[in-house]
Amino acid sequence: MTKQWLAQRAFSFDASGIRKVFDLGAKLKNPINLSIGQPDFDIPDAAKDAACKAIREGKNGYSPTQGIAPLLTRLQNDVDQQYGHEDRKIFITSGTSGALALLLLAILDHGDEVIMFDPYFVMYEALTKMCGGTPVLIDTYPNFEFDVQKIADAVTPKTKAILFNSPANPTGAVAAAKVAEDVAKLAAEKNVLLVSDEIYDMFCYETFTSPAQFNPQTVVMGGFSKSYGMPGWRVGFIHGPSEIIEQLLKFQQYTFVCAPQPGQWASLTALDCDMSKEIAHYKRKSEMLYDGLKDLYEVTKPGGAFYMFPKAPWGTASEFVHSAITDYSMLIIPGNVFSKRDTHFRISYAASDETIERGVEAFRKLAKKQVKN
Amino acid sequence: MTKQWLAQRAFSFDASGIRKVFDLGAKLKNPINLSIGQPDFDIPDAAKDAACKAIREGKNGYSPTQGIAPLLTRLQNDVDQQYGHEDRKIFITSGTSGALALLLLAILDHGDEVIMFDPYFVMYEALTKMCGGTPVLIDTYPNFEFDVQKIADAVTPKTKAILFNSPANPTGAVAAAKVAEDVAKLAAEKNVLLVSDEIYDMFCYETFTSPAQFNPQTVVMGGFSKSYGMPGWRVGFIHGPSEIIEQLLKFQQYTFVCAPQPGQWASLTALDCDMSKEIAHYKRKSEMLYDGLKDLYEVTKPGGAFYMFPKAPWGTASEFVHSAITDYSMLIIPGNVFSKRDTHFRISYAASDETIERGVEAFRKLAKKQVKN
Repeated sequence: MTKQWLAQRAFSFDASGIRKVFDLGAKLKNPINLSIGQPDFDIPDAAKDAACKAIREGKNGYSPTQGIAPLLTRLQNDVDQQYGHEDRKIFITSGTSGALALLLLAILDHGDEVIMFDPYFVMYEALTKMCGGTPVLIDTYPNFEFDVQKIADAVTPKTKAILFNSPANPTGAVAAAKVAEDVAKLAAEKNVLLVSDEIYDMFCYETFTSPAQFNPQTVVMGGFSKSYGMPGWRVGFIHGPSEIIEQLLKFQQYTFVCAPQPGQWASLTALDCDMSKEIAHYKRKSEMLYDGLKDLYEVTKPGGAFYMFPKAPWGTASEFVHSAITDYSMLIIPGNVFSKRDTHFRISYAASDETIERGVEAFRKLAKKQVKN
Repeated sequence: MTKQWLAQRAFSFDASGIRKVFDLGAKLKNPINLSIGQPDFDIPDAAKDAACKAIREGKNGYSPTQGIAPLLTRLQNDVDQQYGHEDRKIFITSGTSGALALLLLAILDHGDEVIMFDPYFVMYEALTKMCGGTPVLIDTYPNFEFDVQKIADAVTPKTKAILFNSPANPTGAVAAAKVAEDVAKLAAEKNVLLVSDEIYDMFCYETFTSPAQFNPQTVVMGGFSKSYGMPGWRVGFIHGPSEIIEQLLKFQQYTFVCAPQPGQWASLTALDCDMSKEIAHYKRKSEMLYDGLKDLYEVTKPGGAFYMFPKAPWGTASEFVHSAITDYSMLIIPGNVFSKRDTHFRISYAASDETIERGVEAFRKLAKKQVKN
């Protein structure tokens, strides 16, 4: 009866399958939780202090739309130094997801195509559809490498943007410098907007290269959530050509309003915190998991982020994940949440060493199990 | 050159005129600032304590999409008690603006009409256009009363929703119980979705009546920003029929993700803080300002919120506001930001008594001034 009031937009995309796994997991006692897309470390104490100080001092009102001045100035300086682009402007968003939502709302007309890699971060496909666009998926199985020729082949007159994500969720794939350069140059040549989601830039065990280095019109999104253990704070940023950034600020005025102010003060302090120990732990966790799985699973060693995307050794990925959850209380995400295929599954190793050890043990048993039915 | 990548959506609405006043104001020393849409009191100490405790305890990760369980349970119980509707569900949004953005995205198809009162809160018109809808404005000058017959006359087969806002921004108008009831029944009769923005419900110097009491399918939006002095925290809520709420949660998954977690803990504690002293101060401030202006200005005594919307005694509202800013360093907002007319201006009395006193003095001089040029 109330359904009559919903827009077509509401029927164009589905709720995330990740939530279903979370709902299942909520019923388990002491699960082996390898499903979570957030770090297992907490925000640094200095950043906690900064947040509490801001709160105590009454910095609880709206910030300017673009963010508090000291954080904005600091990030603008960093971006100017890093890229040296004349026309690159930045502002503070409500997380990297917030940045992506603003951008796709601002650029997508009905039928505009957005090129993205499959498997993709779950938000890319849904948000593109929500904004009236058409996701164009480039298959990257089995090794999840970014093939620039495939992108070139996928460009049509309707292509509005290429959504690039390195290090990638859910595969952990990292683009080599040459690939980042080639994608950047291709976008410029084809007159397509290049969008680079760099939320995992600090979780990179190889050299991280932003395609924006090779294409000054690239829009870059990043955030504090993963790097500094503060996803619940909803603070991120977006930078790119000033004409686009000005438009995004207009969209922000009427939607997000501003990123939460105390979180912005925490972020400013977080920028000066050394996270190298945490990152080193994640490299080690990655190796622990990879070494525990590689002889029994078809799995690509990730170069970054905190995910691995192995192939299910039997059954569909959904069948395999169902068994993992019900027989081993192990929470992982079936690949069809991120992909047109239902063959692989995502492991997040943003977990304690003990959880990873328990996971490896369960995975080794699971691999040897036959599919039910 | 980068403009080619923008969607039609981006050209359908303008940046808020409020920002232009803020930009002007930033250059003034010790201005009489009566332009700000947020309380001049700070979040209660107990709520600050709760936020800092949450931060120290590591509650810095994502919350569930719908919000932290204790706040959700508390608000659901409150709503169940208040309305007794069988099918009314609630969740936590990133402010009331976040709730409105989710709702309009979820309900508006191209050309759908949204009925709203003129003058209106600046976000209503822009967001309706951003989502492809058409704002249908109902003129409420000169006394800003809600005329239900005018709404009935404005309903067409394309009407999707009525956007109701009492106490209202920018006029401070409050709907009488009978009006709220009539609007609610009209919406039900016409099969139109009634949306009630109740962000100022605590700032009501008359009896507050929600139209949802008389129409169980009403969607209600509210928040903690104004009531508890925490607009920078970005925590609000939305409740309505479960089918619509489920859809809004899906939109939240891919945009806002969740309201900032520490702010949710602060909100939970804020609910138990007594704000009656602050509200009483606002009633007094309202009278102080009204008494200072009523003999020289055509002004309706507000029943709620913290705004007054007098008529400019000379010139257009823009000319009058320009003189207020440049000749008296007094920041107010011209009515054309909220209206098709440029005849009135918004005063926010969410300010210190001293600021209001300085304001009254300046307004009295200004009223006697002649328009320049």
